[in-house]
Order: sequence, then structure tokens, then C-alpha cells
Amino acid sequence: MTDISRQPVTAVIGLGSMGMGMAQTLIRAGFETHGCDLRPESLETLIAASGHGAATPGELSVTPDVTFIVVVNAAQTRSVLFGDNGLAARLTPGALVVGCATCDPDDARAIAAELAVLDIDYLDAPISGGSVKAAAGEMTIMASGPSTAFAKARSALDALARHVFEVGTEPGQGSQVKLVNQLLAGVHIAAAAEAMAYGIQGGCDPNVLYEVITQSAGNSWMFENRVPHILAGDYNPHSAVDIFVKDLGIVAATGQATKFPLPMTAQALTMFTQASAMGYGREDDAGVIRVFPGVDLPARAANDEG
Amino acid sequence: MTDISRQPVTAVIGLGSMGMGMAQTLIRAGFETHGCDLRPESLETLIAASGHGAATPGELSVTPDVTFIVVVNAAQTRSVLFGDNGLAARLTPGALVVGCATCDPDDARAIAAELAVLDIDYLDAPISGGSVKAAAGEMTIMASGPSTAFAKARSALDALARHVFEVGTEPGQGSQVKLVNQLLAGVHIAAAAEAMAYGIQGGCDPNVLYEVITQSAGNSWMFENRVPHILAGDYNPHSAVDIFVKDLGIVAATGQATKFPLPMTAQALTMFTQASAMGYGREDDAGVIRVFPGVDLPARAANDEG
Repeated sequence: MTDISRQPVTAVIGLGSMGMGMAQTLIRAGFETHGCDLRPESLETLIAASGHGAATPGELSVTPDVTFIVVVNAAQTRSVLFGDNGLAARLTPGALVVGCATCDPDDARAIAAELAVLDIDYLDAPISGGSVKAAAGEMTIMASGPSTAFAKARSALDALARHVFEVGTEPGQGSQVKLVNQLLAGVHIAAAAEAMAYGIQGGCDPNVLYEVITQSAGNSWMFENRVPHILAGDYNPHSAVDIFVKDLGIVAATGQATKFPLPMTAQALTMFTQASAMGYGREDDAGVIRVFPGVDLPARAANDEG
Repeated sequence: MTDISRQPVTAVIGLGSMGMGMAQTLIRAGFETHGCDLRPESLETLIAASGHGAATPGELSVTPDVTFIVVVNAAQTRSVLFGDNGLAARLTPGALVVGCATCDPDDARAIAAELAVLDIDYLDAPISGGSVKAAAGEMTIMASGPSTAFAKARSALDALARHVFEVGTEPGQGSQVKLVNQLLAGVHIAAAAEAMAYGIQGGCDPNVLYEVITQSAGNSWMFENRVPHILAGDYNPHSAVDIFVKDLGIVAATGQATKFPLPMTAQALTMFTQASAMGYGREDDAGVIRVFPGVDLPARAANDEG
């Protein structure tokens, strides 16, 4: 069994912008932290920050107590755990895996069940907040799992997040809450784009629109956060259009599988898919406004690479 | 000419929940205030608050300097101004009319042009905030018109509103900004309903969903304000489903007239229309969640009249 009285050895699999920030936060909080990524430059960055790196889980120099898998979807999570040089075979009974990808809840339940056979705990723990908050230890975690799993993760979760929401005792519940958040986030970005395009086309000054709406009942977190990208003509990606093609795609697929209608989701997904088909998939998600033809948008910023 | 050096005599046409609150606020701020409404009980309430009442504009005992028309749409605004016993014929040159209904910008422009022929100023000034804020002098006004019109309205606007946004010098611009706000408000209520229905159907505790989302990127002003009605099972109307059938209908019609696609608006309008067709038109707009079948919603509150 893992000894939870000592500081756990942690690992982060997937050193993208979120995973790297999380690994650096764990190191700063005093955890022995290992990272895996196939990109040598990511491992160099981690090692420079006093972490330990390996290309694959099979090559880790230790057996971590708590491993965060910070990849983009359930298929990659499965590959990390059960693929070649996979993590599951390396871990000792009593270890904890924390799955951070946005997944279909059915996938989270299936992964937890496969790990349970090996006596490995699983926390279904999607994350939110972006890379800046990940690096600052201020992100949000929406997690579900047994109390034993939360106990093992507690010190690391507290280091990583400002808000740790314990949304249930069963795997899948964390993923379900995350999908509800992504549904709203995606619909609100699409709505912000539609509202700005409509207002500009109707003769409104876009800066005035932003000032009025952010102080009125039409405001949303996403409107307030993303519309400045439109005003600045800066579509360098903070979060890309294709992320919402993916995430709203997961939401729509769960609705389809359970025969549950999701009309607003379907419409927003169509808009992000259309923007991607127009060639804007890797631009900032505020770029979904390009699906509205003939709108006199603020000029592109000089530093915009789109 | 109206003498703007003295306190203007004000009138409010339409003493519904917004208009009555505005009239009472004007009285409290020291304005001589007249009100018109066909409902005798509304006039009695106004007179009890030291106002002056008449059933129609033609029967007013004075010629007001500044008249707020607080009705539901452009057709009613026209009827107040140009119908039998209409206001326009009563007013003296230099008087100011403030149109507060949510209108198609084309209607606001046409009304302003007709009043200009009579040398009557028009402020295109939709309002927002609900009856409680109207009664407290804390509502929001999104207004456009010439500076002369703003000058005549200034003291009354400052009494009525916490925020007075001057969004342009032309009639129609105020209405356009209001429609952008209504587009977002309606889409966000529909999205909140879809997200809560989806999450509950997926096994989430609705109270947990509310707690997590209101502290996450999926939040909106409307999610935060309306979802508590769902949690409490209380669909007594603060603002009714049919208000958004009307307001999103105006937004959709302007899009249609200018051949501008509004996919999110169209989808939300369909949902509100469906809820109305199911018999929920006069319930609170959060009741749009009833369009999702088979969801185990929180029980109806004992005081719910639906």
C-alpha cells in the first residue's frame, strides 16, 4: 500500500500548457515530481524546473504514488494507461491515477473499472482555468471518486487548485459536471460571436457594445473574457476553435447515445465546425465570429498570426 | 420651447410593473409626475403615491415636458403617440418623448422621424433591470438620440437609472444595443435550461451543478439569476417565457429583414416558442427547461401557481 503519511511522489503525464503548469506548481509546492512527454524540449523545461523527466510512463525512474494524466481525451488517457510502455503496469497496488482530460462519463467509468482490477484508485478529475491558472496553482478541479482516492490526492489537489469541487463518489460524475461546463462555455462563446456580429452589422460601436453588455443581464464569463480578442483583432489562440469542436462533440455524442436532445449545443457545435472548415480551427475560439459573413470586424492586430 | 432651467413636468405612459416603479421613483425624486393607464387600480396606486393619473394621454391635466412611454412594443408605442386620444397631438413643440419599449431599430427611427415633423424630440431609450430596480431608481437605460434630447432628459434619467449608456446620436442605436442584450439574455436562459436538464439527466446533483458552474467559465448573469428558480421549483414569473418569445422574435425578424443569419437566436426562440405551446408561456422564463422531456426536476414549490 502507498503510505499516505509521507508526501506522495507525483507524476504528470502530458506536459502541454496545462500539464507543464501543473508539474511546475507541484515542484514549487515541494513534491518530488516526474513528468512524461514525447517532446524532448518539454522534458528539458521540466528538468530545468527541478523536475524529473521521461519520454514514456514505462521509463519513469520511480513508481509514483499520485499520477495526473493531462491529455486531451479518453483515447489518449487509455493509451497512457494501457498502451505500449503503459502506466498501469508500472504502478503498485494502492497507487492513485487522476484523470484530467475531458471525457465521456462512460469512458471515465470504464477506465476506473479496469484500474480497480489492478487495485489502483481512480479520480475522475477534469480541470478548468487555462494554462496561466495551472501554472499559478489556481485552476479549478471538478472531481469524483471514493473518499480513499480523495485522501491520497488531497495534498496535491490543494497545491494545484483554488477550487476543488468534490461532485460525487462515483467515477463519471466529475466528467459529467465538466461536460455541463463545456456545454455552457461553448454555447456562450458562439452566442457572444453572434451578438457582436449582429450588433456591428446593425451599426453599433463594438466597444460600446462590450461596455454595455458586460454591465447588463446579457453578460457571461465567456463574453467578458473572449470579446476583447475580437475588439483587439487578435486571434492568436488562448484556446482554439478546434477545442470546442472536440468538447461540444463529446457533449453532443453523449446526448445522442442517451437520446437526449441538445439543440443549443448542436447549433454551437455546427458554428465551431463551420469555422474550422473555413480554416480557423487553430485560431482563438473567439474566431468563430468569422462564420458571420460581411461583418466589418475590428482590424486584425499587427501581432495576429492568423 | 420647453424651459429646461426648471424641473421638467414628467409623465409615464403605461403603469405596468416597470412603468409604475419608474413613476414612483420620479415622484420620490421631486418631479411633478403624471401617469396614464387604462387600469383604474394602477391610477389609484399612482395617486396614492402623490402622482396624477389619467386613463389616456388625451386626458392628462397638463402638457408634460418629458414623457416616458413604457409599453411592450413598437405598435403600442405608436398607438400611445398617434392613436385615438394620442400623446403627440397634446405635446407642445420642444417637448421630449422617451421610448422605453424593446423595438425594431427601424421602428424607433420611423417614430423619431414622425415626431420630428411636430418638432418633438425623441430619445430611443430601452430599459433593463426589472421592476425591483425600476422602483429603486437603479435600472439600466441604453439610449440614443441628439444631445438636445439628452439635455432635456438628464435630470429624470439620473433619477431613474444607475447606468445611463449613451450609445449614439441617432434613434435606432439604443434599440439595436437592447436587442443585442436580449439576444444574449434569451440564448443564455435557453442554454442554462439545456445545461441543467442535461446534467440532471446525467446524474448530477442540481445544487452541486449550480455551485460549480457559478464559479467556473460556464457562468452567465442569467445562469446565476434564473437557475435558482429551477432549484426551488418556483416558476412564478419574474419575467415570463412569452417575453422572450416576443423579444427573440424581434431579434429574429431584424435578422430576417436584413438577411443576416442568427442560428443561436433561432434555436433559443424555437425553445421558448415550444415552451409556450406546451402551456408555460406565462410562467417564469426558467420554465423553458420543460421542453426537455423525462428530466427529474426539483419538485414544484408549494407557492408555485403553475
